[in-house]
Amino acid sequence: MPNEKMRAFGAEASVIRQIFEYGNGRRAAIGAENVFDLSLGNPSIEPPESFMRSIKAHLEKDGAQALFGYTSGAGAPETRRAVAEDIKKRFSFDAAPSDIYMTCGAAASLTITLNALCDPGDEVILLAPFFPEYRVFAEKAGASVKVVNCRAGDFQPDISEIGKAVNARTRAIIVNSPNNPTGAVYAEEELKKLAALLNEKQKEYARDIFIISDEPYRELCYGKKPSFIPALYDNTVLCYSYSKSLSIPGERIGYIFVSPKVNNAKDVFAAVCGAGRSLGYVCAPALMQRVIADCVSETSDIEEYRKNRDLLYKGLLDIGYEVSPPDGAFYIFLKCLEPSAPAFCERAKKYELLIVPGDSFGGEGYARLAYCVKKETIEGALRGFKALYDEYKAEKKI
Amino acid sequence: MPNEKMRAFGAEASVIRQIFEYGNGRRAAIGAENVFDLSLGNPSIEPPESFMRSIKAHLEKDGAQALFGYTSGAGAPETRRAVAEDIKKRFSFDAAPSDIYMTCGAAASLTITLNALCDPGDEVILLAPFFPEYRVFAEKAGASVKVVNCRAGDFQPDISEIGKAVNARTRAIIVNSPNNPTGAVYAEEELKKLAALLNEKQKEYARDIFIISDEPYRELCYGKKPSFIPALYDNTVLCYSYSKSLSIPGERIGYIFVSPKVNNAKDVFAAVCGAGRSLGYVCAPALMQRVIADCVSETSDIEEYRKNRDLLYKGLLDIGYEVSPPDGAFYIFLKCLEPSAPAFCERAKKYELLIVPGDSFGGEGYARLAYCVKKETIEGALRGFKALYDEYKAEKKI
Repeated sequence: MPNEKMRAFGAEASVIRQIFEYGNGRRAAIGAENVFDLSLGNPSIEPPESFMRSIKAHLEKDGAQALFGYTSGAGAPETRRAVAEDIKKRFSFDAAPSDIYMTCGAAASLTITLNALCDPGDEVILLAPFFPEYRVFAEKAGASVKVVNCRAGDFQPDISEIGKAVNARTRAIIVNSPNNPTGAVYAEEELKKLAALLNEKQKEYARDIFIISDEPYRELCYGKKPSFIPALYDNTVLCYSYSKSLSIPGERIGYIFVSPKVNNAKDVFAAVCGAGRSLGYVCAPALMQRVIADCVSETSDIEEYRKNRDLLYKGLLDIGYEVSPPDGAFYIFLKCLEPSAPAFCERAKKYELLIVPGDSFGGEGYARLAYCVKKETIEGALRGFKALYDEYKAEKKI
Repeated sequence: MPNEKMRAFGAEASVIRQIFEYGNGRRAAIGAENVFDLSLGNPSIEPPESFMRSIKAHLEKDGAQALFGYTSGAGAPETRRAVAEDIKKRFSFDAAPSDIYMTCGAAASLTITLNALCDPGDEVILLAPFFPEYRVFAEKAGASVKVVNCRAGDFQPDISEIGKAVNARTRAIIVNSPNNPTGAVYAEEELKKLAALLNEKQKEYARDIFIISDEPYRELCYGKKPSFIPALYDNTVLCYSYSKSLSIPGERIGYIFVSPKVNNAKDVFAAVCGAGRSLGYVCAPALMQRVIADCVSETSDIEEYRKNRDLLYKGLLDIGYEVSPPDGAFYIFLKCLEPSAPAFCERAKKYELLIVPGDSFGGEGYARLAYCVKKETIEGALRGFKALYDEYKAEKKI
């Protein structure tokens, strides 16, 4: 028999994928235009033109060996330089190529960082609601997970609750702003309080406690900009991916930035290299590294997401739903009309409305709505939400 | 402080990289044409034309979302189908798309497989000489490593020694044929004996013992073809990469084939999916998956490697060196002219000859010569080897 934990991780039916498969069946049965699928966080907009231009230019001008050959484990020098320059320019924060480790996307950034930082028995704090894979990644890295709920209503971090959760075994806290699944952008004020708390706890326990800042949605924000966390807290390792900003999730390209202010930064960077090596990440895909060097400051045109967000958010408020303002990413976290989110989401299927129960995100009683879809899908979904609301109302459940 | 083992893995100076850096210094000082660098296993030939054609065709005809979007964790259906069909056709062996898991290259194939199969405390047998990363990958997967020497001279597996090493904790043996660093292609006769031995040991210990067949060099052979190990031993998981066959090592694309004859094959496949997931491998790079579906049966023109091999092998024999015939990959494992390989390789630098001591491969007293270089580099290297030989002879060391 294989490793039982790995088997279970592999056999575990992803709720999102189940809904997606159900949707495929419905699309085949009644036509895609009649199914309102808000289940998948899959970019629906085009990569910027510069991205396609860059690929084609490299294919024309570079030799195959230069283009498709190994880069060093941490990445091609020009790519690491471009990323470091981008951080310096945008955030006025010190960053050198030697602080940058190029990765195969956001998940790789996280697993490498967790394996680099954690010893067996360490604890990693997750702020609920959170991306469910965090638990899988942290447990595989040998850590155990401690979940702390965000404030109800606005989904901002609850500093006092985090304070209660930190202990002598805490190694890291994962911060994800803009947030999947809530769309919340964490307020700088709260993050400063978090930094003060962690600094105090580091002293108390004479131990490094890291913020792992998972930022795949950094560029997707519609009001306040997400804070640059390395500027607020020294022991920060930043995990980035270009999947969402360039709409290329299948290409698996991102980076880890070990802030030079991290305690023993050189050792932490070496551990990142060692974790990448021992997990089998030889180098990030080479062609994409070249393209990132060209497109590091580019972003897909997110105007479509903003329009979808406005349409969906206002539509839901108008119907009567309780929704906190989604400031970033492409998700809305909706309060369900009954305590059981799975029951609510199941009932929504009657209107061909496919949404994901918040339970696996640590957000019971909520549903995640992904608005990275066509405008028509939002419009159809809103008709469903209206009918659903009326149904609950008729039953005097609300 | 970060995880100490990861830090050490990251800080560990790779001998090969050190030599490469030294070479960079020499190239800058005296010109690349005067440095005879046989240290790196980096493909020196072009990808097949069909590969470039396939990339360009997809960029022209596919929409960006279809091309750069997520595939399922195990891979795009058409890619898994193409790989399974290729196995069926070439090896007359049963293979279905559901047996294929697409990976980010050979290292990912191995780490995912090792993490899927091993429980903490399990042992993995390595046949020395072996690719040094095997140890890193196996240890990170929680296993410990047991090294068994191949037969001196021809570097074939020593079945009787393997028999002594197998015990109640053995979970797997990594078989790498064609072999890095020796170039040996393991004889089918020996592999059949190995299969018989493992079948017996499985019964004795009432426990699955897997062959992990690491085959990045499968297509690079110049005489006898490597055996298709799933046909010889049921509990085989095959790890493949297109890095060498298509000369695209930076693109990180390969696959795992869980033979349908594996005991509890569905559970093993689930564990592969779970290991991939928990190590952060969301999907193999999407564009490359499309290209592999087109180019699955293509190979770079390896004629240049064959010529290099003939030139280097015969040249070394003519001078008087002891070399076993290299049947595959692009390596020759040379018996050094003194017991210490590091001392021998250091002395070779006098002739601008850069070769890697076999010690880190578990092959003390040998040096690895990579002949994936230009013909002129081989010619210059042979002049160096001649001078080196004469020097040892003059000192009456040989």
